[in-house]
Amino acid sequence: MSSAGPIARLVVELAKLPGVGEKTAARLAFHILRAPAEDAAALASAITDLRSKIRLCSRCWNFTEADPCDICRDERREPGLLCVVAHPQDVVAIERTGGYRGRYHVLHGVLSPLDGIGPEDLRIAELVRRCSEESLREVIVATNPSVEGETTAVYLAKLIRPLGVRTSRIATGVPMGGELEYADRLTLARAIDGRREL
Amino acid sequence: MSSAGPIARLVVELAKLPGVGEKTAARLAFHILRAPAEDAAALASAITDLRSKIRLCSRCWNFTEADPCDICRDERREPGLLCVVAHPQDVVAIERTGGYRGRYHVLHGVLSPLDGIGPEDLRIAELVRRCSEESLREVIVATNPSVEGETTAVYLAKLIRPLGVRTSRIATGVPMGGELEYADRLTLARAIDGRREL
Repeated sequence: MSSAGPIARLVVELAKLPGVGEKTAARLAFHILRAPAEDAAALASAITDLRSKIRLCSRCWNFTEADPCDICRDERREPGLLCVVAHPQDVVAIERTGGYRGRYHVLHGVLSPLDGIGPEDLRIAELVRRCSEESLREVIVATNPSVEGETTAVYLAKLIRPLGVRTSRIATGVPMGGELEYADRLTLARAIDGRREL
Repeated sequence: MSSAGPIARLVVELAKLPGVGEKTAARLAFHILRAPAEDAAALASAITDLRSKIRLCSRCWNFTEADPCDICRDERREPGLLCVVAHPQDVVAIERTGGYRGRYHVLHGVLSPLDGIGPEDLRIAELVRRCSEESLREVIVATNPSVEGETTAVYLAKLIRPLGVRTSRIATGVPMGGELEYADRLTLARAIDGRREL
């Protein structure tokens, strides 16, 4: 097929995305071929823009355009309250609940010895420094209720408590084995309300 | 969130793709943020290239870089045999069987009165012209075994038979209600072998 070049190349690139197999990639590629040219251009430029405009906030390590990020600079946020999450999309999920008014700290992963992920691979040193430097009242650990998430929470509590900062864990309103990212708003809001001390 | 701009924009663009909801779009966007920068650049340029390099073959109306396409120009293809398909991805599916040695004609849809799609919306006039101008021995109609696909096949047979060209239909090896695009190679190869005259 003469069109094997560009189509096959896009199929290869699309198939690198999570949950996208070769057949789905082909379906998406043919859709992009048939869609209005503006849509294809907008998708391509959105991908390029994303990578050129987004960096990590040097304070909370969330994805951001400006450094520090809008949440870190937002003076209406409760300054003594910090929510620790594994991934940036967990910030999005918690913000959607509308019930949390503190700031965040993004670890970019959880402790996972089997995968070779230790404390030095996460933003844990940065978290401990914030606990010493900022006048924090409470750190809420909102990692997933999985083995790695719980292990990470216990590990963080041992580091943070000696610094005189109260450390809590979101309630198991999020079902065990589930993904925080996909919890519904109410479940997640209740999990934050019902947090217990570690 | 300060990152709402570029991330939200990509989520909107991704969610326009078929089968991609808002949550999947967000998952893909965050994956693109974390993936190597080369991968994101390659994906964006593959999308752009696709649209700038791919056109329709003026003979068979398949997607192609060169006009006429590689298949139309391939002299090893059996000149008297033409396979009519609804979509370019059906050509890909039939080529994958490795058992078909003729050429193609892409209708870009099927007759569907309920959706307002009539003969003038498809490449049917072009097909009839090919049946008059090219020395065709047989036209195989390989539209999906759906109501619209069958209707289209019968409609085409009525137009083509008076021109002295044998018209056949792929066998119902492809399960009824199924999609030709997703048939396995063997089923599709058998459907081509077992074609019956219309």
